[in-house]
Amino acid sequence: MQVTDLYVSAPGKAILHGEHAVVHGKVALAVSLNLRTYLRLKADTFGKVCINLPNIDTFLSWDLSQLKQLVTYGKVDEVQCLDAELVRRLREFIGVSNGSLDTCSMANLSFLYLYLFCICFLSELPSLTLTVWSELPTGAGLGSSAAYSVCLAAALLCASGAIPPPLKEWEHTARWCQEELELINSWAFQGEMIIHGNPSGVDNAVGTWGGMLRFLAGKIIPLSRVPLLRILLTNTKVPRSTKVLVAGVKDKINKFPSIMVPVLDSVDAISCTCEKVLSEMTCEPITGEHYNILEELIDINQHHLNVMGVGHPALDRLCQVTLAKGLHSKLTGAGGGGCGITLLRPGSTVQELKDCGFDCWETSIGGPGVQQHSAISVKEEILEILNYY
Amino acid sequence: MQVTDLYVSAPGKAILHGEHAVVHGKVALAVSLNLRTYLRLKADTFGKVCINLPNIDTFLSWDLSQLKQLVTYGKVDEVQCLDAELVRRLREFIGVSNGSLDTCSMANLSFLYLYLFCICFLSELPSLTLTVWSELPTGAGLGSSAAYSVCLAAALLCASGAIPPPLKEWEHTARWCQEELELINSWAFQGEMIIHGNPSGVDNAVGTWGGMLRFLAGKIIPLSRVPLLRILLTNTKVPRSTKVLVAGVKDKINKFPSIMVPVLDSVDAISCTCEKVLSEMTCEPITGEHYNILEELIDINQHHLNVMGVGHPALDRLCQVTLAKGLHSKLTGAGGGGCGITLLRPGSTVQELKDCGFDCWETSIGGPGVQQHSAISVKEEILEILNYY
Repeated sequence: MQVTDLYVSAPGKAILHGEHAVVHGKVALAVSLNLRTYLRLKADTFGKVCINLPNIDTFLSWDLSQLKQLVTYGKVDEVQCLDAELVRRLREFIGVSNGSLDTCSMANLSFLYLYLFCICFLSELPSLTLTVWSELPTGAGLGSSAAYSVCLAAALLCASGAIPPPLKEWEHTARWCQEELELINSWAFQGEMIIHGNPSGVDNAVGTWGGMLRFLAGKIIPLSRVPLLRILLTNTKVPRSTKVLVAGVKDKINKFPSIMVPVLDSVDAISCTCEKVLSEMTCEPITGEHYNILEELIDINQHHLNVMGVGHPALDRLCQVTLAKGLHSKLTGAGGGGCGITLLRPGSTVQELKDCGFDCWETSIGGPGVQQHSAISVKEEILEILNYY
Repeated sequence: MQVTDLYVSAPGKAILHGEHAVVHGKVALAVSLNLRTYLRLKADTFGKVCINLPNIDTFLSWDLSQLKQLVTYGKVDEVQCLDAELVRRLREFIGVSNGSLDTCSMANLSFLYLYLFCICFLSELPSLTLTVWSELPTGAGLGSSAAYSVCLAAALLCASGAIPPPLKEWEHTARWCQEELELINSWAFQGEMIIHGNPSGVDNAVGTWGGMLRFLAGKIIPLSRVPLLRILLTNTKVPRSTKVLVAGVKDKINKFPSIMVPVLDSVDAISCTCEKVLSEMTCEPITGEHYNILEELIDINQHHLNVMGVGHPALDRLCQVTLAKGLHSKLTGAGGGGCGITLLRPGSTVQELKDCGFDCWETSIGGPGVQQHSAISVKEEILEILNYY
């Protein structure tokens, strides 16, 4: 059968406030990052499925006949929890050992798993080529795997006919309706489970809904309106283990409960205050005082993250260098290195910071979630990559 | 009449934890600093009172006949609150305007005020020479004025016969009993009131009792036993206004109560945890883990003080430089510059830090309060200064 060609994209995510505290039942705010993952789906008639991931030099194709055999044992139609038996068979099929977590294998595994879901809606598997290109660095805590899973889910749900492509002829970009987004999000979560084992669901939710999400005790609430804010995202490139950092915070709370529990409460109040200020910024004229408060919250939270022991000299340096330019930074995500975000006021320039040798991107937060694009609305250099394969 | 010659000394103070939080009803821990102020009292028969303060180039003397006139209006015998009329006459006598707060005038004013108290116990004022030399920098928040007031109080109370000199012939140093220390402290507090207007009473209490004091809601409780700990005291020499800093913290609490109140609670818990650890260190073998905890508390509190907005780049630099040597620092006192303390582990050396250009003293905390010395127990270079005049 023939499916519609389409371009989709989904944003990365950054934690604005509440990283680590969220593990201990406090509010966290996750925002979309205007560094996006783009996917092109092209229908063809070669009886093959091809996936091209030029970011990680991965170009693979499988015969439909091979893939069909993988679903003979049962029908794939349960999106609440992973079909462990199918995952096992897919691992065997592409030759990945159980412990392996390399980006390439995980990308293939999650693709094939979601692809086979198409059988829920179609009598036969579609012949197609997928090409994915991302502006996001991988493994930096910026939700690159979720943006990938969200793009896959949206494109494959369209290919299977489960949801329609929302783009009208005269439009450049279009989004799906709420119900369709929920389906995309639940499929993307499947992909995330394959890649991460036990994901929080925040990353795929940000990739799906964009804007800002409030995350509390496992519940994810998309916030209706947030302002688009310019930020500088800096990758310290200091490698770290999220698991070790989370365990370290837990140990510190157990060692000094009377000292650390109030710090978590303070972080919770920072998230709530930030949410309130951002919501004000969408319904009243934005003033310098709004920025002052956002900057104060960033500073306080960065100190609190240092108290939790998840700081790093490279992050201290980022804070110092940006502060010397009147800008305020904090780590985002797990910390211990990783990425930092710096709030940019309207008109502030960051060339000097780039000159400092930081690996950084000037971008924005609060942009839209997953969307379909007309070819013309995809940045030229990205379009070139997507159409090359 | 003739009084006994004597040498006394009193320690400076540092705030170990709880600065600023104490203003908002939280616990603070103040410790004695082994940088001391030394006083020599020499009786003579010239019918004069002389005071020599070589640290501030002040050398003055007054005829007893002049001073006697100042107390003709009434007897000075109330140590609970200042005799405002006497203060007014003394200001007039030494020619200090009401607004003047220079160190020299304040030192003379408090000396003369306490000296005239002698009339409570004696029918006539004694003829004597006082020489005071301090190892403490003035105006650095290290309790130099309190150490001065405590020395004055102890020496003048001895001179007036109100308390006996405690030193036995065969002893090098000796301290007064609890009741006598309370009298010294209440006199010293008078001196502090003249110098500072509205002192907390913590500085003179540390100067009197030494060791460590717990300060909570205006109540000062000397703690029975504390270990003697080596520290590095660093004066950033960045000038600051305590009043402005205290107001800034208050503003921040009012602006962000839900964020800042938990931070104060956390500081309170830091003080309590520190007190507990220090008390353990006096009754069980001191281990590396004791130091680990003290260091963690220092780091956390320094972050909290930054949250309160009383940090300074010079203090950040101190923390960074010492951390590079495996040592942990925090500001002490008002912050915004001023002094920092660095905990030294047994065996750690600090020459490299001194080489960094910091103005610092290697000293200890937790030493004795006011004491009387035999001449031989006073460090030679200090004895030389005291005996020069």
